Amino acid sequence: MAELKNDLLLRALKKETVERPPVWMMRQAGRYLPDYIKLRNKYDFFTRVQTPELACAITLQPIDQVGVDAAIIFSDILVIPQAMGLEVLMEEGKGPSLPKTIQTRSDIENLRTDNAEESLAYVYDALSLTKQELNGRVPLIGFAGAPWTILCYMIEGKGSKTWDKAKQFAYTEPALAHQLLQKITDITINYLKLQVKAGADTVQVFDSWAGSLSPLDFSIYAQPYLLQIADALHEHAPVILFPKGSWYALKTLSESKAAGIGIDWCVSPAMARELTGNNITLQGNFDPSKLLAPIPQIKKWVKEMVNEFGSQKYIANLGHGITPNVPVDHAKAFVDAVKETAFSTQSA
Amino acid sequence: MAELKNDLLLRALKKETVERPPVWMMRQAGRYLPDYIKLRNKYDFFTRVQTPELACAITLQPIDQVGVDAAIIFSDILVIPQAMGLEVLMEEGKGPSLPKTIQTRSDIENLRTDNAEESLAYVYDALSLTKQELNGRVPLIGFAGAPWTILCYMIEGKGSKTWDKAKQFAYTEPALAHQLLQKITDITINYLKLQVKAGADTVQVFDSWAGSLSPLDFSIYAQPYLLQIADALHEHAPVILFPKGSWYALKTLSESKAAGIGIDWCVSPAMARELTGNNITLQGNFDPSKLLAPIPQIKKWVKEMVNEFGSQKYIANLGHGITPNVPVDHAKAFVDAVKETAFSTQSA
Repeated sequence: MAELKNDLLLRALKKETVERPPVWMMRQAGRYLPDYIKLRNKYDFFTRVQTPELACAITLQPIDQVGVDAAIIFSDILVIPQAMGLEVLMEEGKGPSLPKTIQTRSDIENLRTDNAEESLAYVYDALSLTKQELNGRVPLIGFAGAPWTILCYMIEGKGSKTWDKAKQFAYTEPALAHQLLQKITDITINYLKLQVKAGADTVQVFDSWAGSLSPLDFSIYAQPYLLQIADALHEHAPVILFPKGSWYALKTLSESKAAGIGIDWCVSPAMARELTGNNITLQGNFDPSKLLAPIPQIKKWVKEMVNEFGSQKYIANLGHGITPNVPVDHAKAFVDAVKETAFSTQSA
Repeated sequence: MAELKNDLLLRALKKETVERPPVWMMRQAGRYLPDYIKLRNKYDFFTRVQTPELACAITLQPIDQVGVDAAIIFSDILVIPQAMGLEVLMEEGKGPSLPKTIQTRSDIENLRTDNAEESLAYVYDALSLTKQELNGRVPLIGFAGAPWTILCYMIEGKGSKTWDKAKQFAYTEPALAHQLLQKITDITINYLKLQVKAGADTVQVFDSWAGSLSPLDFSIYAQPYLLQIADALHEHAPVILFPKGSWYALKTLSESKAAGIGIDWCVSPAMARELTGNNITLQGNFDPSKLLAPIPQIKKWVKEMVNEFGSQKYIANLGHGITPNVPVDHAKAFVDAVKETAFSTQSA
């Protein structure tokens, strides 16, 4: 394997001194990129995910075109329900749906668990190919959905504003919920280890719907499984946990085996530093809606964000995925602003 | 007017000593009540809202059937866009939609503002009739949507998980956003004053989508208008502000002219007390998804919640509206548990 020419992301995760903060964007591969849209018009979603050459090509697009400091493999968190035997449909522009949802003990018992992660060979192949094609330009990020978030989709069968059905399942059938969460966790750990083996330099766990839970319920239904994953993976690769909306868990997670915590824009950088005792690398938290503003305004906001987080133990990112309507030069302005800010910080 | 026999809610809002905390539930009038569903099957949504006899009957149902300590007038926050000249459609089970949205300066200038609140006479009539029918049993709550939340619907034209369009409008056209927010605020203030004049004992302002904003953006686009409303109303009636999701604003709002702050379940009672310096009456924050659990479990959770908030300067409520699938006896268990807890707290 080629030696990394740009290892800013990995050094930031190791709390090493960096000359400027690394920057990447959640959902950077896809949606807003014209070259992605061309592939989308030719191949359906899961063909793009399951064909290593396509996933690799999509993963590389933002490296070349936007100048981010890391590649994140093009895939989807719902490959885990697929590996466990559930059908997942993806209708363009409408989000995912699962025709058969989990409702009973026997539904859970019927899920495939033994070696389920082995059915995801196309992900490992895509990682290996991408690693080779990157040729050391930037680190490669693997990822998975967090167990709570995967449970949400398995129970509801589609996206939701409130995840009431998933929560009602957990609150009325806590033993079954924990059984399901543990099954998802076990497979996710194996899956992430295989991603690292295939070439991922770091892995991010997306708990996109953690914020639907109260602090107490997060500590019951989400946190234990995030911690299990961090414990199991941290000797293989640095782990970034992204519990969207769960500002109340920042302190506990900052004391875990995770190397980084992703935060959304609903906590200020200063408050996030305070809640984590400045003890861990933070990643975030630009509101993607702001990428529609004029470029000089974007750059001003980005510089304010970086200054508030500080240039060390920091990975510049959005607070959620980039939206499809962002012009490429606005995305690039976000990335450029981070790079420029670091220099102005250094000279200050 | 008949003297109030149960004034627990008003005493809690005045920080006076109460023998037990008052309890009511957001969306308590409607949805989950069989008698409401009968009326829903006969009259469409805005007929129910605009016919004082129907709105009154619906408002009274949970007083008689669930035993709450306050009535909240059956209405909708989107009557304000209607009063300003926008069409609002309500499709049963699908939520509201506005066929014509606000996109430009001229859209804003074309909104009706002069005496727009006068077109909402049916709300005042419903309040007067309900006040009379209540005959002093419990206080009557009026309400309105917060300006930011009303702007969200006016720009997006329907519900959204992320309110990206509304935020993009605010971030790219801040002057227009403030112009629109101020127009909504002015009408809302007049509207709430007329609600008080018609019989509302207190008013709640629902900022349901405040949590889509960062702390800084909340302070720019939401908070100033909430404070204007609290300033203008507090000498007329106690004001409850409910900035859902905006835990970061609790301190500032606790120092405002509001008498109470509603909180959702994503902040713990102890943290909410800490953030507000225990200086203001708090309302909330039971996760409505928990009302599907078995009754003994509901009662246990409610008692834990009340004990954590404490029995004084506290109004027991949900952290968001009750969902349609809650059995009536579960809603009643929530109310009963609050009443029972207070006694056990007193004897402790």
